[in-house]
Amino acid sequence: MTSPGGQHGSRLDPWIQSYARRTAGMTTSEIRALFAVAARPEVISLAGGMPYLSALPMDTVADTVAHMLSTQGLTALQYGSGQGDPVLREQILEVMALEGISAHADDIVVTTGSQQALDLVTRIFIDPGDVVLAEAPSYVGALGVFAAYQAQVAHVTSDDDGLVPAALEERILSLRAAGKRIKFLYTVPNFHNPAGTTMSMQRRPQIVQICQRYSILVLEDNPYGLLGFDREPHDAMRTLSDEGVVYLGSFSKTFAPGLRVGWALAPHAVREKLVLASEAAILCPSAYSQMTVSTYLATCDWMAQIKAYRELYRERRDAMMESLDALLPQATWTHPDGGFYVWLTLPEGVNAKAMLPRAVTERVAYVPGTAFFADGTGQRNVRLSYCYPDSQRIREGVRRFASVVQTELELLETFGPYDATGRGSGPSAGVQFPAPDLS
Amino acid sequence: MTSPGGQHGSRLDPWIQSYARRTAGMTTSEIRALFAVAARPEVISLAGGMPYLSALPMDTVADTVAHMLSTQGLTALQYGSGQGDPVLREQILEVMALEGISAHADDIVVTTGSQQALDLVTRIFIDPGDVVLAEAPSYVGALGVFAAYQAQVAHVTSDDDGLVPAALEERILSLRAAGKRIKFLYTVPNFHNPAGTTMSMQRRPQIVQICQRYSILVLEDNPYGLLGFDREPHDAMRTLSDEGVVYLGSFSKTFAPGLRVGWALAPHAVREKLVLASEAAILCPSAYSQMTVSTYLATCDWMAQIKAYRELYRERRDAMMESLDALLPQATWTHPDGGFYVWLTLPEGVNAKAMLPRAVTERVAYVPGTAFFADGTGQRNVRLSYCYPDSQRIREGVRRFASVVQTELELLETFGPYDATGRGSGPSAGVQFPAPDLS
Repeated sequence: MTSPGGQHGSRLDPWIQSYARRTAGMTTSEIRALFAVAARPEVISLAGGMPYLSALPMDTVADTVAHMLSTQGLTALQYGSGQGDPVLREQILEVMALEGISAHADDIVVTTGSQQALDLVTRIFIDPGDVVLAEAPSYVGALGVFAAYQAQVAHVTSDDDGLVPAALEERILSLRAAGKRIKFLYTVPNFHNPAGTTMSMQRRPQIVQICQRYSILVLEDNPYGLLGFDREPHDAMRTLSDEGVVYLGSFSKTFAPGLRVGWALAPHAVREKLVLASEAAILCPSAYSQMTVSTYLATCDWMAQIKAYRELYRERRDAMMESLDALLPQATWTHPDGGFYVWLTLPEGVNAKAMLPRAVTERVAYVPGTAFFADGTGQRNVRLSYCYPDSQRIREGVRRFASVVQTELELLETFGPYDATGRGSGPSAGVQFPAPDLS
Repeated sequence: MTSPGGQHGSRLDPWIQSYARRTAGMTTSEIRALFAVAARPEVISLAGGMPYLSALPMDTVADTVAHMLSTQGLTALQYGSGQGDPVLREQILEVMALEGISAHADDIVVTTGSQQALDLVTRIFIDPGDVVLAEAPSYVGALGVFAAYQAQVAHVTSDDDGLVPAALEERILSLRAAGKRIKFLYTVPNFHNPAGTTMSMQRRPQIVQICQRYSILVLEDNPYGLLGFDREPHDAMRTLSDEGVVYLGSFSKTFAPGLRVGWALAPHAVREKLVLASEAAILCPSAYSQMTVSTYLATCDWMAQIKAYRELYRERRDAMMESLDALLPQATWTHPDGGFYVWLTLPEGVNAKAMLPRAVTERVAYVPGTAFFADGTGQRNVRLSYCYPDSQRIREGVRRFASVVQTELELLETFGPYDATGRGSGPSAGVQFPAPDLS
């Protein structure tokens, strides 16, 4: 048969004229191809956000799952509730209690990773052009969702203590004055991805109150909250307002991401909409994955496992900090006390995205800072992760990275900044989604 | 703290003014509460679309999964590719070859059940107001997705041989004359849910050609294609056009729905958009579920399992047909030669939705026909499923159902039709999503 799409298509894509307007915002990241190279074993990747699963007792997990299937297989392999397994939702209450949250299992929706919860919240709240407030920088996966729903992202100044309350209020007022509809504030209060910072306990009630004053929902995304290195978990922002906060949690970092089990805790009316939206999106989350998590929580010492993860990541964080201190006097960086990431600021003139191909050639990979802004800023920023490589490889990775930066600075001195030479790229046209393992 | 949402919220829902426009279409089905009752063991449900998993060799599956975790656990529990596991995508080619499809694994996207594939296709093609063509009746889960993206669904006359080509072309011309943008034709060609019919082989090229002529994509949804009772699988519509058809497949009916593993096979450029849309929605499909399916396909006799399912469902179909023949002379119905469902037409004046509460009281459940139309028609239609209860319960269920219908007809004769008495309901305001196990 001849090409479909008829007169309005093209040979490369017969359907080019048929896509929805939102699809224009979905473009392949130009750094994606590079990361295919970066996956080679000789490259030390400080780019990914993959948890170090070798720390899991895999044989125990295998036995646990086999037993679960033998005894509850007919339920685990069948369609389940759109809202999620009731037993797991009760267990999630116990997990959230570690952060001071008191809630009802009926207000929880289990999702296909917390990414799906992000998608659902955005789906039910965002009309094209609506504003989402977010930290500067912000999680790339969230920016991808917001772009997919044609939201306008307004970054709010953030520092080592997280979002700056005065900057938040100022931003709200100026957006309102411009006639914008602000729907929610998206924030990662603990061990921020990519910033590595934690919102101070003093600021939390201030941020919640400001949002309340202007009828702005708070979307608290907390995948790393239990992975603090030095103290007990912080109380969640959700503890400050039951009705004003949608809280997102995940088992991806505390257990395993391949199961794709996350959740949203939402005000009751919002939860109802989330369930309907999720049923349209996927019918129901995987009973198999949910019951795997549920059985793991019930029969394994998951608290001890989290403790093991914390110690592991603390050691790696230390290795990275020591190496940065020793090798990168030209840069500044944040000092994470939990989570997976550190955020670097390189000297004026460096373009981290343009530098990446050379870094990969030197067998080290990172994520350029522009990925974490909706507006093209972050050119001289870099996210480094310390979650996956061991301490020795982290040290070697930072050594390679420092050498790339050093050469870059020498090139800069000789040839001038990127934008003047045409080697580099200006602000990106929009959010570009990286490969999943970079998120 | 006081209620957020401020002056513009309500006590029941502080965020009532904040939702996106699309959220208005997400309402809870009024029959949902009834089905909570229908889940009680004394009720014979002819409503659900749950496969009969007791036919699976559960201990073998458990052993297979345990071995997979012990040997490949680090991959199965980790983040994976947004497009899906490459090994599984190759295996999916073998599955589709049974329906004559020749394709490339790079054009497959693995999804969280084929429901997510439906969501993604709709997401990338539909702007609010765009038209989706669909059979009359059509799959309720698809109608839910189309409503969630504010599509307008135009039903096309269908008979025992599926969509009527002349009616399709006529519908297209009248919609075009009205200035509508038609994006795709949604069709379930084999063992239709809910109609129980199969599109004739003669009509398939006609339907594909008509869509091609008017630059309309064909969305071929085929979860039941391998579950025919009497012959080898039909060739898929995808065999007639590589570029004009997006094909959706699923392991929910041939293996197990709790894994949530489905897929889309799409023209290459469309596939790229689908992957980006899926990464925004869920980052990546579950590696754990995918590798479970992949290992099952590689190590178990999945063709024999499908054969066992086919024989099981054929026997149940026979039981239902025999009971209907014997007990329901007042109605007509379709004669499925595969799949899970039969579609009944009750006498003029019967309102199947209004009759449902009485049926549940009589301990039998079904899905009223209006669920399968976007426009409120189908009032005297009923979908009965024969997939889950055994033959004996099917016979008893049909006996109860026939008795409910008989009483209803007597009531009708005494009191007149529903709409005149105010007992019933008129055309529904929109698509209402039922519980997942009804889909």
